[in-house]
Amino acid sequence: MRIAMLAPPWIPVPAPAYGGIEEVVRLLSAGLIARGHDVTLFAPPGSRSDADVVPVLEEPHPDDIEKAQYEADHVARAFSEIDAAAARGAPYDVVHDHVGHTALAMADRLTVPLVHTLHGPFTDDACRFYAQHGHKACIVGISQAQLDSGPREMGGGRVVFNPIDTSEWPFSARKDDYVLWIGRMSPDKGPHRAIAAAREAGVRLLLAGPVQTGQDRFFAEEVEPALGDGVEYLGEADAERKRELYLGARALLMPIRWPEPFGLVMAESLVCGTPVIAYPEGSVPEVVRDGVTGFVVDDEHAMAEAIRRVGDLDPAACRRDCEERFSVEAVVRGYEEVYREAVGRRIAA
Amino acid sequence: MRIAMLAPPWIPVPAPAYGGIEEVVRLLSAGLIARGHDVTLFAPPGSRSDADVVPVLEEPHPDDIEKAQYEADHVARAFSEIDAAAARGAPYDVVHDHVGHTALAMADRLTVPLVHTLHGPFTDDACRFYAQHGHKACIVGISQAQLDSGPREMGGGRVVFNPIDTSEWPFSARKDDYVLWIGRMSPDKGPHRAIAAAREAGVRLLLAGPVQTGQDRFFAEEVEPALGDGVEYLGEADAERKRELYLGARALLMPIRWPEPFGLVMAESLVCGTPVIAYPEGSVPEVVRDGVTGFVVDDEHAMAEAIRRVGDLDPAACRRDCEERFSVEAVVRGYEEVYREAVGRRIAA
Repeated sequence: MRIAMLAPPWIPVPAPAYGGIEEVVRLLSAGLIARGHDVTLFAPPGSRSDADVVPVLEEPHPDDIEKAQYEADHVARAFSEIDAAAARGAPYDVVHDHVGHTALAMADRLTVPLVHTLHGPFTDDACRFYAQHGHKACIVGISQAQLDSGPREMGGGRVVFNPIDTSEWPFSARKDDYVLWIGRMSPDKGPHRAIAAAREAGVRLLLAGPVQTGQDRFFAEEVEPALGDGVEYLGEADAERKRELYLGARALLMPIRWPEPFGLVMAESLVCGTPVIAYPEGSVPEVVRDGVTGFVVDDEHAMAEAIRRVGDLDPAACRRDCEERFSVEAVVRGYEEVYREAVGRRIAA
Repeated sequence: MRIAMLAPPWIPVPAPAYGGIEEVVRLLSAGLIARGHDVTLFAPPGSRSDADVVPVLEEPHPDDIEKAQYEADHVARAFSEIDAAAARGAPYDVVHDHVGHTALAMADRLTVPLVHTLHGPFTDDACRFYAQHGHKACIVGISQAQLDSGPREMGGGRVVFNPIDTSEWPFSARKDDYVLWIGRMSPDKGPHRAIAAAREAGVRLLLAGPVQTGQDRFFAEEVEPALGDGVEYLGEADAERKRELYLGARALLMPIRWPEPFGLVMAESLVCGTPVIAYPEGSVPEVVRDGVTGFVVDDEHAMAEAIRRVGDLDPAACRRDCEERFSVEAVVRGYEEVYREAVGRRIAA
């Protein structure tokens, strides 16, 4: 198929530092090309890919994220290129849109069918937006839980999880003596709940992640006083350190209290052969196979109890499940189906 | 004609406090209706007008100005209504767009011709944007100077000045003993240059306008020390106080050093019968008729010299020129021509 991949206009692909959407775009483009598809990546200048890269605007706009001027400019120029390709007899079969809003809102004015991946949670404002414009594209959620929190008028969507390049991640069945918590130091992510659970289970806990702006008080009041006595804070971990931490952990603890749309850390943990013990929020019940690749638990006491049983789970089963469902290959297969559906829907219309 | 007036999605029309674009939309809509046109105003909820008001989004977004989500949502919904009107046999003849970017960028995907008014100066980024998308609409500048600073690729545009409702403003030929400076306390606007000119001319000077965030230092260093001895700072003036100040002033001083695209204060001064003495920046040479409704001067010395001669000018000529060129009626006539051109251009295409 000929696929026009539409990245956001803010930062290049791959992202210079952190960029979740850009990572999905990078892996998906590579995976589609590996499967023999023809991919054109519309992205900010400085982007690199085996796809044909069309740098749409003159520069990236990392300091103007969500600004209408650049999003409208980026999308309108990309749409023009997509129309021009059809005019010269080389039409795209599908546009895969990762931009926030403008492409979807205008998708009914483009001749090529659009697939739109939902990268964020459904706030009230997002629900209003998707209630109006969701029907203009094939909507893809990154979990069923995310889709289920969308507006009825959107008409649902397909689920394709976010990809992880399993070849970039090591595996080990041999575990160290600690459990791991990794994330931003916010109440939603629950480092304080991880501490309570680990302490109740009598197991060593390593905490890794940044203290971001506005999180100092929470960290100082809820986390710092509880450090010591088997609980260690390591600061933010770089890519290599993260791999080491996952590899050696007996389990990843995810005592979250917000509807995480996907939760890449769970896939990262599983690919290293490390089970996940998590609260049943957002995508958790879909990502964690309860009793096979981890445990879905309701509170700190249940988490402590699950930590004691987690050695019974098979690290190889964690890796295998991740490869089957979250690998680039699995995600590419998922999107191939959605693309075919989008093309078929347009032909039927 | 049937006109779809597209206001920005941020604040209602009329604006609760300050809103330059919303004021243009308010006056223009009223003036077009007075001329017998059929106007539908697509604007945020809470908008009031003699036009048919279509409140596009569920609420205004005063704290999210320029955010792509709301601009894309607003424009896409308005475009759908405009298409639906045609489908039910009541097409609009023209869309008059005052939204920043999304409508213009997508105007080639709408069947109704679009007129787009430029409300801001041409920054480098704006030039890039209009180089790409300017050809998709009939572009209207609020001065020739503004149009001339645009990109060549835009292909120029028509000039229609911003309107002032002359019936809302008083006139007096009898002047007090002071000259007036009014504006934000920024170096661009030149209150310090007005002080130097007035002092050289030996005339009393009243300064009115807010000290906005970031302007404290400039005010404390360049303005405050020069107060007293015939120079008075009045703070920000409300609507009524502004009228009194213009009415009694022998002249408005505009020693600006930036390319002001239009400069409504000049029209406000002229309508009260008060000549304008200004630097030849931006629209000034177009708005001020040198030697008739004011003087265009190069520096503080020339401004001082012009202050001595300004009593020779006829306040009634200032009022008359304002009525002929900046009144709602004059501006409506200008836009009627542009609308006809837009319709003709679309038919020819």
